[in-house]
Amino acid sequence: MKKSAAIGIDIGGTNTVIGLADECGNIPLKTSLKTGDYKKAEYFVEKISKEIKIIKQKISEEYEILGVGIGAPNGNYYNGTIEFAPNLPWKEKIELAKLIEEKINIPVVLTNDAKAAAIGEMIYGGAKKMKNFLMITLGTGLGSGFVVNGELIYGHDGFAGEFGHTIVFENGRECGCGRKGCLETYVSATGIKRTVFEFMSDYNFKSDLRDLTFHEIDSKIIYDKAVDGDQVCLHAFDYTSKILGRQLADAVAICSPEAIFIFGGLAKAGGMIIDATKKYMEASLMPVFRNKVQVLPSALDENNAAILGAAALAFKQFKKVTK
Amino acid sequence: MKKSAAIGIDIGGTNTVIGLADECGNIPLKTSLKTGDYKKAEYFVEKISKEIKIIKQKISEEYEILGVGIGAPNGNYYNGTIEFAPNLPWKEKIELAKLIEEKINIPVVLTNDAKAAAIGEMIYGGAKKMKNFLMITLGTGLGSGFVVNGELIYGHDGFAGEFGHTIVFENGRECGCGRKGCLETYVSATGIKRTVFEFMSDYNFKSDLRDLTFHEIDSKIIYDKAVDGDQVCLHAFDYTSKILGRQLADAVAICSPEAIFIFGGLAKAGGMIIDATKKYMEASLMPVFRNKVQVLPSALDENNAAILGAAALAFKQFKKVTK
Repeated sequence: MKKSAAIGIDIGGTNTVIGLADECGNIPLKTSLKTGDYKKAEYFVEKISKEIKIIKQKISEEYEILGVGIGAPNGNYYNGTIEFAPNLPWKEKIELAKLIEEKINIPVVLTNDAKAAAIGEMIYGGAKKMKNFLMITLGTGLGSGFVVNGELIYGHDGFAGEFGHTIVFENGRECGCGRKGCLETYVSATGIKRTVFEFMSDYNFKSDLRDLTFHEIDSKIIYDKAVDGDQVCLHAFDYTSKILGRQLADAVAICSPEAIFIFGGLAKAGGMIIDATKKYMEASLMPVFRNKVQVLPSALDENNAAILGAAALAFKQFKKVTK
Repeated sequence: MKKSAAIGIDIGGTNTVIGLADECGNIPLKTSLKTGDYKKAEYFVEKISKEIKIIKQKISEEYEILGVGIGAPNGNYYNGTIEFAPNLPWKEKIELAKLIEEKINIPVVLTNDAKAAAIGEMIYGGAKKMKNFLMITLGTGLGSGFVVNGELIYGHDGFAGEFGHTIVFENGRECGCGRKGCLETYVSATGIKRTVFEFMSDYNFKSDLRDLTFHEIDSKIIYDKAVDGDQVCLHAFDYTSKILGRQLADAVAICSPEAIFIFGGLAKAGGMIIDATKKYMEASLMPVFRNKVQVLPSALDENNAAILGAAALAFKQFKKVTK
């Protein structure tokens, strides 16, 4: 008997990765392409469909493909569309799921990347058996997936889960969304870099970062310097955790999750982010929620998480229907 | 054939109201008692059970009772308990649903009052056919019920929906929960009164309220004076709406609801609360959510809303099982 599998596709601003995943989370096949090489969405659809057909041919004796799952920035689950994604080459509204489905004759489901990560955590990661948890992805921005009663919150229009765009400071930092003071302008790879610049301005600490330009500094350097004891970087990690912890306390008041998973480059800073966020969250929580909510690093392997999340979405969507 | 009915019980700090409701929202029978007369929970259970039996006897030829629904402050849906409710005579943890069920041999379900109101709105009120909406109840405090994917958010422990205890100002007003700056210290009948006192301190506006003590002023007086053009009261309504509107913008970012319903005494101020809140919310919303989310007064009749909400909870819980 053939094994069940799903194709997971992660569309990023730089790379698009396509992989075949089985129900245990193995990825026997994986390929990638440069998203920016496809100036028109139709060329991209053509290429993706071709890659899927190649995978299908290669594995047809061993696996049955239940469906294709896509995680994409600004992806809308209800419509299967990518809508006005600022970091992708195609700025219009694209019916990606439908366009690919028509070419490959396999069902396709799509959602945004953070929601796909949440489903990945639920099926392959640390949230197995959890019905209520939050997924926070820290990258260029802050993405989130809120799971309640075992289901993702998509909201009325499919755009729910914009925790990164809750406001933490009135008239705070400028955000790409056109407003000010959004959480992700403080808590993300970009946010911690902005904090470093604020702190180099506010404090007189000596710091190696004073020899680097804004464009030269990234969250990896900030982490490495923090480990070396750089006070600007250590304070920046503490401040990032404080803002995140406080805002999570509000999210807990609304959703009362069992756990909060942190995913992405910054999450690798471990105690400097995970433990510190937990500490500040606990200090801000309403008494009834104290010492109940775990803050954990994602259990997914970062290299495969996006594919697994997208594949998990397809398994969740098509498994019952197909079998 | 007998008609289906449910018994709805609303337990308040002052009164407990018990009513029989049918599926159309009619309440053929209603009775009430003083909650404070029952110093021990067991006396209260005894009395409630007796009243239920009386109702059952009276209507047994016409109605079949599917179940009993209870809305209570600090009510926990998962456990059927009231836990450490500051405004009730019994401060301990009481297994109310189980205790009553044992005496009357009819299934009993319990939740907190704001969540019951949300279910009432969904079954009898303005949220019929809505799968994603928020219910905000403005009374002494601010209660909330978040509905996503057609289900209430109870959270991991049953205590989700504490929107009134999200923080709007760091080191803001003292809250009954032991922290500072909670939304309900600004947005509630008590909150607007505190704002009036802040504004009588901040501004030199003439106001009739300067002749009244803190204990003499309530939200009804503030509303009446605002209608008369009192500047302190008008500013207080505007400020209340501003704080609520801004905080709702964050809730929308997380849940993306179709509508937000406002219930309770303050909601009767109509445009001064509903329209003003909508205006401030729109000004704070992320672009993708603008002009999509309605802010509406609850469509439930205030006198019967609590009973209908509790009865609706029982219908939702026991209808499928019984039929």
